[in-house]
Amino acid sequence: MINEVMAQVAANNSAIREMFEEGNRLRALFGPDKVFDFSLGNPYFPPPESVKTAVFEILNNMEPNAVHGYMANDGFPEVRRTVAEYINETFGDTLTGDDIIMTVGAAGGLNITLKALLNPGDEVLVSAPFFLEYGHYVRNYGGVLVPVPAKEEDGFMPDLEGIRNAITPKTKAFIINNPNNPTGVIYPASVIQGLAAVLEEKQKEFGTSIYLISDEPYRELAFDGEEVPYLPKFYRNTIVGYSWSKSLSLPGERIGYLAIPPRVDNYEALRGAASVSGRVLGFVNAPALFQLVVQRCIRESCDIAAYDRNRRLLYDGLTELGYSCAKPQGAFYLWLKSPVADEKEFVAETKKYNILLVPGTSFMCPGYVRVAYCVSPETIQGSMDGFAAMAKTYGLMKK
Amino acid sequence: MINEVMAQVAANNSAIREMFEEGNRLRALFGPDKVFDFSLGNPYFPPPESVKTAVFEILNNMEPNAVHGYMANDGFPEVRRTVAEYINETFGDTLTGDDIIMTVGAAGGLNITLKALLNPGDEVLVSAPFFLEYGHYVRNYGGVLVPVPAKEEDGFMPDLEGIRNAITPKTKAFIINNPNNPTGVIYPASVIQGLAAVLEEKQKEFGTSIYLISDEPYRELAFDGEEVPYLPKFYRNTIVGYSWSKSLSLPGERIGYLAIPPRVDNYEALRGAASVSGRVLGFVNAPALFQLVVQRCIRESCDIAAYDRNRRLLYDGLTELGYSCAKPQGAFYLWLKSPVADEKEFVAETKKYNILLVPGTSFMCPGYVRVAYCVSPETIQGSMDGFAAMAKTYGLMKK
Repeated sequence: MINEVMAQVAANNSAIREMFEEGNRLRALFGPDKVFDFSLGNPYFPPPESVKTAVFEILNNMEPNAVHGYMANDGFPEVRRTVAEYINETFGDTLTGDDIIMTVGAAGGLNITLKALLNPGDEVLVSAPFFLEYGHYVRNYGGVLVPVPAKEEDGFMPDLEGIRNAITPKTKAFIINNPNNPTGVIYPASVIQGLAAVLEEKQKEFGTSIYLISDEPYRELAFDGEEVPYLPKFYRNTIVGYSWSKSLSLPGERIGYLAIPPRVDNYEALRGAASVSGRVLGFVNAPALFQLVVQRCIRESCDIAAYDRNRRLLYDGLTELGYSCAKPQGAFYLWLKSPVADEKEFVAETKKYNILLVPGTSFMCPGYVRVAYCVSPETIQGSMDGFAAMAKTYGLMKK
Repeated sequence: MINEVMAQVAANNSAIREMFEEGNRLRALFGPDKVFDFSLGNPYFPPPESVKTAVFEILNNMEPNAVHGYMANDGFPEVRRTVAEYINETFGDTLTGDDIIMTVGAAGGLNITLKALLNPGDEVLVSAPFFLEYGHYVRNYGGVLVPVPAKEEDGFMPDLEGIRNAITPKTKAFIINNPNNPTGVIYPASVIQGLAAVLEEKQKEFGTSIYLISDEPYRELAFDGEEVPYLPKFYRNTIVGYSWSKSLSLPGERIGYLAIPPRVDNYEALRGAASVSGRVLGFVNAPALFQLVVQRCIRESCDIAAYDRNRRLLYDGLTELGYSCAKPQGAFYLWLKSPVADEKEFVAETKKYNILLVPGTSFMCPGYVRVAYCVSPETIQGSMDGFAAMAKTYGLMKK
């Protein structure tokens, strides 16, 4: 009776809900400090104080209608100009405010991009493991998501040969997420160069345009001095989607941007379509006050060093216990190899120690689990006894 | 190459853009106080002071992560509870917070509802004239919009006989907008009763569920003591979509709700599908801070009496000059009969007097124009010379 796809999604959603409820059940039973919940990507460290200062400054100095009223669907012109200037200064590009659309988070930006790009049957590639929502976003517009498995032995870098083989004349886009959720790895410039070469080769072969959609909510969460390449420098047909959810710890406020450089194929048509897509999908515009806030806080960030300390604490603790994982370089995720082939068995075992993790199957990559370390340092410390006990069980302890 | 539908929408969008640019051109040429722009539905009267007070109170007293962090996709439980209680007190319903989804404006709520409801080919009825975005929203999900013309002689009330004839076994929903954009009329209880009877008759005949989707951003803008019926009292399968864009003058903040009473057909499935639809479409959740703001300001409103004064000023002025219009009872629109058959000709004429109106064709109802009186009283007063001159031209002046 109701939409069949959404009814199915709702039914499958019960797994996530169950995990959430399981967490609540355990917290009620044992106390919140005795439950080690690594399942959610919800920032633990608060926004910088400058966010609050900016809100007060805006509300005290601007006319209320200029703050809260409608603006052009793409966003306040002065905010878009600031974003373009910031990108230009930081990455050496030459964008203008016209190339920026303020969006309802990165998820809003991705949906707008795919709505503007895809015709039914178009294919969108992604390297697996990946954030499963991409599949929904692509299917929203009649597209087909084509996951290409990354290789464990390559540290979960995109498999360029596999990607080359998967591209067809119907391939319209590749979604890349760097730093990566769920693996926490960063794709370096060399890998991006390789990917760009494959996409260019195939564009030429098929006479098509293949857009690289770069989903970058974790851009600033890069550690050990690793650089996150700015993709429009490597590949002409790049569209960047950004969100301040992580860098300013504002995930509930839904504020991000799309950058569409004027050198992408079909710029005029695509730019116009992206603009109306936001309206047609009911986003209308990005939340007004927080457009003005991010304009004022564009050089600010939450305490990123605190995430780095968490990362070391978790990584050092787990590897000392004999666990294996992908090298965690960015975002706030550690991608842990399950000590047993079926990682769901491992996740069930960790629950006995009040440790909540997400099985790799949820990212189309079984055998691994995601540990989200956007938690208090105490959560990480507190979990180590449980991880140690399981290391013993699974015979991981180093001799 | 890019999505064909969106490319077409973008091309058609040029008409709106042209009008906007024409306004800017005229303002630059003659000065902003010499241009009488009645084309936009952007609230003129500011939010109540309590909005600012609420923001300050929230930011000064709550933990930043509790304000700006992720919450369940449906919204903060305490906000949803407050909304349910407010609805119950005001309209005598028995909703709980579980029946409320906080949404990215009313447009977000409508898209979520249609995503959750429609299967490809499903039909959605609407009384014309109507807000043309409904057509986009329905087509987003493979639905077919079926407009049923209202009759001028019935004061633009829905044509119940026409609706009865238009309903088929594929009819999944009827979108109703009360008070109405663009006509400014209010559908009274008697009309709603008639509509409910038709929908119930057809549900029975076809063994289907037909949902009445009530789009209510103008609910509080009701004048002359007119009451806006609460539709779930009249028809069981009603879903209400609301927005604080107008009542609190916050259109840029994108904050609204969906109310799905538990007595609607397929409640469990529909409720679950609506919840995941918001996530899948990339809304994720309604902006966090403004959820907390509307919770605190749910009994507040902008200066509605000021809109009423505008309405009288405009209505009295135009009717004295001999113009005809639908009886303006609600929203902030006056639906003016064009003095010539082709209302686009009239709109071109009004431009000579720096008066900007929207032709009825933009609402699928030629022969009329929409005058949005969410403007300063001075704009209305200043426009009267132009309207008087045209009344002379068209021979409207009363003897």
